Amino acid sequence: MFENARLGQSVDRKTFEAREPGLREELLDAQFRLREAGFSVVVVIAGAEGAGKGETVNLLLNWLDARGIATHALGAPTEEERERPEYYRFWRRLPAKGQIGIFFGSWYTQPIARHSLGQIDEAAFEDGLRRIAEFETMLTDEGVLVVKFWLHITKEQQAKRFKKLSANKETRWRVSKLDWRYHKTYDQFVTSASRAIRRTSSGPAPWHIIEAWDARFRHLTVAETLLAAINARLAQPAPPAPAAEPLPVPAPRNVISALDLSLAVPEAEYRVALERRQLAIGRLARDLRDSGRSVVAVFEGTDAAGKGGSIRRITQALDARFYEVVSIAAPSDEERARPYLWRFWRRLPPQGHVAIFDRSWYGRVLVERLEGFCAPGDWRRAFGEINAFEEQLVDAGSLVLKFWLTTSPEEQLRRFQEREALGFKHYKITPEDWRNREKWPAYQAAAAEMIERTSTEIAPWTLVEAEDKLHARLKVLATVESALEGALRGRR
Amino acid sequence: MFENARLGQSVDRKTFEAREPGLREELLDAQFRLREAGFSVVVVIAGAEGAGKGETVNLLLNWLDARGIATHALGAPTEEERERPEYYRFWRRLPAKGQIGIFFGSWYTQPIARHSLGQIDEAAFEDGLRRIAEFETMLTDEGVLVVKFWLHITKEQQAKRFKKLSANKETRWRVSKLDWRYHKTYDQFVTSASRAIRRTSSGPAPWHIIEAWDARFRHLTVAETLLAAINARLAQPAPPAPAAEPLPVPAPRNVISALDLSLAVPEAEYRVALERRQLAIGRLARDLRDSGRSVVAVFEGTDAAGKGGSIRRITQALDARFYEVVSIAAPSDEERARPYLWRFWRRLPPQGHVAIFDRSWYGRVLVERLEGFCAPGDWRRAFGEINAFEEQLVDAGSLVLKFWLTTSPEEQLRRFQEREALGFKHYKITPEDWRNREKWPAYQAAAAEMIERTSTEIAPWTLVEAEDKLHARLKVLATVESALEGALRGRR
Repeated sequence: MFENARLGQSVDRKTFEAREPGLREELLDAQFRLREAGFSVVVVIAGAEGAGKGETVNLLLNWLDARGIATHALGAPTEEERERPEYYRFWRRLPAKGQIGIFFGSWYTQPIARHSLGQIDEAAFEDGLRRIAEFETMLTDEGVLVVKFWLHITKEQQAKRFKKLSANKETRWRVSKLDWRYHKTYDQFVTSASRAIRRTSSGPAPWHIIEAWDARFRHLTVAETLLAAINARLAQPAPPAPAAEPLPVPAPRNVISALDLSLAVPEAEYRVALERRQLAIGRLARDLRDSGRSVVAVFEGTDAAGKGGSIRRITQALDARFYEVVSIAAPSDEERARPYLWRFWRRLPPQGHVAIFDRSWYGRVLVERLEGFCAPGDWRRAFGEINAFEEQLVDAGSLVLKFWLTTSPEEQLRRFQEREALGFKHYKITPEDWRNREKWPAYQAAAAEMIERTSTEIAPWTLVEAEDKLHARLKVLATVESALEGALRGRR
Repeated sequence: MFENARLGQSVDRKTFEAREPGLREELLDAQFRLREAGFSVVVVIAGAEGAGKGETVNLLLNWLDARGIATHALGAPTEEERERPEYYRFWRRLPAKGQIGIFFGSWYTQPIARHSLGQIDEAAFEDGLRRIAEFETMLTDEGVLVVKFWLHITKEQQAKRFKKLSANKETRWRVSKLDWRYHKTYDQFVTSASRAIRRTSSGPAPWHIIEAWDARFRHLTVAETLLAAINARLAQPAPPAPAAEPLPVPAPRNVISALDLSLAVPEAEYRVALERRQLAIGRLARDLRDSGRSVVAVFEGTDAAGKGGSIRRITQALDARFYEVVSIAAPSDEERARPYLWRFWRRLPPQGHVAIFDRSWYGRVLVERLEGFCAPGDWRRAFGEINAFEEQLVDAGSLVLKFWLTTSPEEQLRRFQEREALGFKHYKITPEDWRNREKWPAYQAAAAEMIERTSTEIAPWTLVEAEDKLHARLKVLATVESALEGALRGRR
């Protein structure tokens, strides 16, 4: 693995100084063109302690234009980060298009360190590496240029470097007791690192292993590699616009068409059940909160199927201090400049809280797919990305609930007309709603495919017959109640 | 103060139910029109424990459309918040235009609670109240509609309510030991609260004191008051566009024109001093970091005065893990939808970090003033807002450094031409730079006024003669070094 990083390669001062001005100029030029290029750059700097990661980052920061570059030296997660899924801290720091983000201390740090110290077993390590691969695949699919550097030094070089730093008054602070402890486990560290590098060196996000002992060689090689990667990407022609896809056609019978829309609940029965369920949900939500877990609920469905009304019946049971309804409309420009799921990651609830998404990440495979707001490749890979995302939520202790509410087209028309006639509801109907209505069969087909591909054991869809609002609300409440109960039992 | 809240006012069920549907409809309608209206609503819900704050917030959330409303129930600050100035947690939660933010647990909670418990003295309390008044004045000046509710119950009512809640299995959890402890200090609490209400009940952000014992009365009164406030604001005609202002004319002699631009440093002397200063700054920055403080440095100046180069000479001395260069360009749409200073608050460094702003909040009184990007009223009040902002930074332990770099117009022209000719620097000159150049005297006048009005004891400006780059860089470094030294000495 590190054979090429043990060759004793070095660069003399004269060569370095001859190359430096030109290289800096080319880097600045690449960075300038990047600004308009519509993609972002994620740089990962990893390697053993003492390999010069900090120096290298400092160098890049000095050579590049500080406008448009951010460094993320991640130590221990903050409290806000600890209360959310593991990758929250990386997602929140993803650079916008045109920008460079340098991560030292990255998604590699914890898995490699913990495996090498024997704190996690093989299965957990492999799981962590799979998650990294998924994350980086998502990044590159979203157009992010991912450039990863592994700075390699030998165990002897590490000891030498620590000693040298310790001997100098000005640099002594840079070597801690922890560093010497890392030195003792150098061999395990390199073994774990090799595996991580092998598993995660993909075509679009390869590792660059850099012989790091000689600072000038390291600096030049890192800078030249980064420059070449950016320039190669800038030189790529824009991909041709994908051909328009035909709208999907629903199968004669699918999970949605199979729903029994005649299900209804009499008003009197509804009143009694509503109160009982809401009391139970309120109590269970408090218990779940005490256990430090969170709830992420998603509402999707046809327009006017009663999502808002169902959400309100849940929130009535909850304490306003501990829930948030997140309504998903058009993305902001900060959101558009980053990978698709960024806007949902940033809205994830902390431990003990309930977040209810009124429309959600499933927009990618519904409205974005059908209206052509994303390329076919984008919504196709979204199924896998969404499953991975929800897996992370569940791993972090979130209970994930997903509801698809549907009525018949006739009932929808009746509600549209009613709303247009009715005072304070008229604003709920927009021209877009009427347009969506014309694509009813296509939406149904897309939704059926979505449910098939994203209804997982850990985050199943609940299909809700919403022709009768009262039935729909009670079904939602009953599902929430039993899911909360199950979650609490599972934990105890 | 609370006379009108001790009248025993109540609403019977019939009256409530007769009014509810109409009121909800009107609220939804107001909320709908708010969405397009270009202002946001901040609702503060305060009052004694047991007054029904939570219930009232729940009610508003249920009656309003959850899309476009967020609740902020603030308990103890998170770690990320504790590492930044006090108001960071409020700023980060300010609603965007068209949205409503409900704060229960607000900027009032801590000052009132701590004063009533004797944890802060009179002076600190008054200071806290002054800060609140400043904050709310800024909000209303920025067009935010601020609606504040104080829910009042008597000491006897509080005891009664706690007992009733404790007696019921379903509500027992809502009364904690802490609540009973608050009950014992009820009188002090009301005394502190009265003062807070008196001091902060301004014309544009008045308090509404609500008799809170009867839930129906409380609910109706809060909802009607909020509705009336939103509707009154919606009914206000848009203010006429302010007349264009003449550009400011520099006085014959001002702080900037008085600078001695002939100051220069020979190359050899520069090299020696640079190394010495950078070493010292690196060491001092580490010491300051250990003391848990942060540095906020601001660079402003004429175009091509060498801000970037000076910044780079500082960052070369720092550890990349602990600094960030924040380049201020055009605001994003999320930023434009909120009060002006929001975009800077969100970029404040945590404890131990250095943030260097390449252009800053001073844009308000420079480019925004001169290009007419904001109304004259906006930049005029910015001086006070900026001073209050920097005061908060200093209070939180930040060292605030501000540099104004200037050259002569002739030197600027020379640098523009040089940059246009030079490979990797050509992108640094834009048509805007040439336009700004034509307004040189106006910029100088605006900058002189800015310096006069915002150079405070706690956050002074350093004027840097930048005709000679080497002199400029050394002056910046020397200032940083002595400021760091002073800060460390002051603390010890």
